[in-house]
Amino acid sequence: MLDAIKVLREKTSAGIMDCKKALKEAAGNIEKAIEVLRKKGIKLASEKSSRAAKDGRIESYIHMNGRIGVLVEINCETDFVARNEEFKRFTKDISMQIAASKPRYVKREDVPSEVLEKEKEILAAPLKNKPKEALDKILSGKLEKFYEETCLLEQPFVKDPKTKIKDVLNALIAKIGENIVIRRFTRYQLGEEI
Amino acid sequence: MLDAIKVLREKTSAGIMDCKKALKEAAGNIEKAIEVLRKKGIKLASEKSSRAAKDGRIESYIHMNGRIGVLVEINCETDFVARNEEFKRFTKDISMQIAASKPRYVKREDVPSEVLEKEKEILAAPLKNKPKEALDKILSGKLEKFYEETCLLEQPFVKDPKTKIKDVLNALIAKIGENIVIRRFTRYQLGEEI
Repeated sequence: MLDAIKVLREKTSAGIMDCKKALKEAAGNIEKAIEVLRKKGIKLASEKSSRAAKDGRIESYIHMNGRIGVLVEINCETDFVARNEEFKRFTKDISMQIAASKPRYVKREDVPSEVLEKEKEILAAPLKNKPKEALDKILSGKLEKFYEETCLLEQPFVKDPKTKIKDVLNALIAKIGENIVIRRFTRYQLGEEI
Repeated sequence: MLDAIKVLREKTSAGIMDCKKALKEAAGNIEKAIEVLRKKGIKLASEKSSRAAKDGRIESYIHMNGRIGVLVEINCETDFVARNEEFKRFTKDISMQIAASKPRYVKREDVPSEVLEKEKEILAAPLKNKPKEALDKILSGKLEKFYEETCLLEQPFVKDPKTKIKDVLNALIAKIGENIVIRRFTRYQLGEEI
């Protein structure tokens, strides 16, 4: 049991008591316990998401000897968390993620409706002979792909591509116990069209 | 004469031959020689300003432990200059300037006409009883002040408030001999309204 707790803690960075309970619930199965913790984490995250996040950090990242630059604002609730090493590491990871993966929006709700309509039109064009039902299914799959490419929270985390950024965020919220919000970012690429 | 050249070089960072010629033209008077060099520098700068600046650096500056952040793109013509220490120092100075002095635009031409009209209206309101000629004069003085506060190139350089940013830029253009353009910047302040 103690070994299992240790493994689970390493895999999830959750607290000892949380790991113990999750393992009990999962009858000692590590994979199931991770699921239990994740569900709990996401629940915790959604409970916290209505709380005001007014503190935080602005982080930057300069890549390729000054050819790419990122500025990002990440909010939390207190100055205390803003100085937390794990929170700082998260802000660094996110600014590197933005440099590497070129998102255009923070979350899918931020995609302007005219961009979304245009994208749907382009995606649907080569499919116009498909029956309606098949078309809707293919289209929704392609749209998901579009969100994954353009929205930071939907992107696979570059340091661990099996995890999405929103899962990394939710895990941090669950662990730290404060609402955390990626508020805005700017990414410059040298000489790009504005 | 050699001493005068040394003083002039320290004050202007211009080349030896340029200093020698300027001192000759100014009959050995340092202040006049600086004027000569400045005129030359500004002329040099305006000659270069039509050349394409496609290379350069993106620089960032994080201030007050992550509560203010700046991202800036500064262009030059070649990769060689982009790696030049003096050019790098300039990009650092400019990002600190933006953090400290909160400009809203790069140059006065970037102020949107509706912002300018609104500003004129506000500035003119308490002056409505003045005769037209006096009003125009006061208004143009107040507008200059507005540009000095809001436009990066018009701002006094925080490290040397007697010099404007555009003069620092022109001196660098004259010295390095490439067109240099402050292209764009973003400044975040933690929790500010977007």
